Amino acid sequence: MNFLDHIRRCNAHDLTQFVPWFIGAARAGYVRPALAKRLQDFPDVFETRASGLLLLPSLRTPLERTVALKNVLAKLREDGIGGPHRLEPYAVVERVGGPSLMAIDRGAASAFGIISTGFHMNGTVGGCSAGLAMWIARRALTKMTFPGLLDNIVAGGQPATLSVAENVLKECQEEADIPARLARLARPVSLISYTMEVEGGLRRHAMYVYDLELPASFQPYPFDGEVESFQLLPIGEVAEIIRSSLDRFKFNCSLVVIDFLIRHGLIDPDDPDYFALVTGLRGAMP
Amino acid sequence: MNFLDHIRRCNAHDLTQFVPWFIGAARAGYVRPALAKRLQDFPDVFETRASGLLLLPSLRTPLERTVALKNVLAKLREDGIGGPHRLEPYAVVERVGGPSLMAIDRGAASAFGIISTGFHMNGTVGGCSAGLAMWIARRALTKMTFPGLLDNIVAGGQPATLSVAENVLKECQEEADIPARLARLARPVSLISYTMEVEGGLRRHAMYVYDLELPASFQPYPFDGEVESFQLLPIGEVAEIIRSSLDRFKFNCSLVVIDFLIRHGLIDPDDPDYFALVTGLRGAMP
Repeated sequence: MNFLDHIRRCNAHDLTQFVPWFIGAARAGYVRPALAKRLQDFPDVFETRASGLLLLPSLRTPLERTVALKNVLAKLREDGIGGPHRLEPYAVVERVGGPSLMAIDRGAASAFGIISTGFHMNGTVGGCSAGLAMWIARRALTKMTFPGLLDNIVAGGQPATLSVAENVLKECQEEADIPARLARLARPVSLISYTMEVEGGLRRHAMYVYDLELPASFQPYPFDGEVESFQLLPIGEVAEIIRSSLDRFKFNCSLVVIDFLIRHGLIDPDDPDYFALVTGLRGAMP
Repeated sequence: MNFLDHIRRCNAHDLTQFVPWFIGAARAGYVRPALAKRLQDFPDVFETRASGLLLLPSLRTPLERTVALKNVLAKLREDGIGGPHRLEPYAVVERVGGPSLMAIDRGAASAFGIISTGFHMNGTVGGCSAGLAMWIARRALTKMTFPGLLDNIVAGGQPATLSVAENVLKECQEEADIPARLARLARPVSLISYTMEVEGGLRRHAMYVYDLELPASFQPYPFDGEVESFQLLPIGEVAEIIRSSLDRFKFNCSLVVIDFLIRHGLIDPDDPDYFALVTGLRGAMP
């Protein structure tokens, strides 16, 4: 196996197995056919068109749409479908950076195949490539998703209510006890996007990537308990874990490291996979 | 206008206006219909199929193909078509990083719509974002292409005979008199790709991007005369030139600067164009 396998895994999907849903002319997301069928039970919210499902045009404002779908989700959850209740609103957008058309609970993001965003941060010590070390988190065993797997030092989904920069400061504090005076030095450096078929539906996700060079004296601490422990590893060791295994890092965190390796000259442009890696990390989102 | 306009310009093309040509099952490039018609005059080199033009399968080795097309190009040049003679062999590949199927003169790269590669280097002074300055070249007025326009400090097409890393050392010396001991510190950091319809045909191009932090005491010198002069500009001024004009930088050099601005935290992820910029800089190559 190699780095490309991580990218392939995150981009494995078959859109013909999904039904798109629309808000006006904007494609908002995709649902599995079984869910599309179930949504026909809510004719005051969705109508069926040849092109897919349409949110009723009478739901004119983002707030009206949000409330209507919230009621639908509550009913779906009674039947154990539509994803868990995460109590965190995600914006529904036609494209990354586009205006919010409505909000939907984070737990339903994949079931409704919306574009979700978030940020992932690389925390490193030592500026020069050879001596560089990277802080790696191990996810808490109590996490709902991917307990015990390796992760970037800090990451967070993007709530509808914050800017990306505000979310970075918040999550740095909560997840790793990084004070704002340090977190403010984090630099936005890249973006990664992928579309992945998952058990719960379709994950269409874009990650804003930040790099933060930490002082050697700083020790991250799992303030909110989402992380089991942090370890500082030589960058070559981190690269080798990812090159040789698909199951040690959480699936999308490995992409963040591969992107870091590219941006820091640690993958050779003469590598035949170089183009596939760089373009594969950030495909246009269907 | 804004940064996206530069990316749009470099990606404006209509593949339906081109005829693909193949080496076996591999799509090698695209030619305009007029050239496709003219190539029918060479039945010992090309045959016409429903899918496009096929290099005769009897030309089995890269060398046989190279010689055959070289003879075709010589005849085309007598009629003033097929591009200038640049006397520099470019590899013909199905995809970036793939094996070389044959070589073709650089001057015919766009007429035959092959994937060409090259590198562009950012030369900067001062590590921190705010105080960062970038060396900008002004292309010599005697250059065949884009005389007098602004350019990155060093750039070069990728000859079939060198590795990317070797080409960087060679061009650093020739174009800016950067000695090998400094040029070796250049770090591969990114890749940019675009597909652009040009007067001479279709430009399918990938640029390996390097960053080189130069000492403040170093002064580049246009050793081979391809550059008129070098100037060191505050990064904010470079960004502003590109944000406000399409005609001061050579078309593809502006993409290299935009990519630099993204990688160095100088474009805000909360900018609605952020996703379109990052993904637009490196589209999959059709």
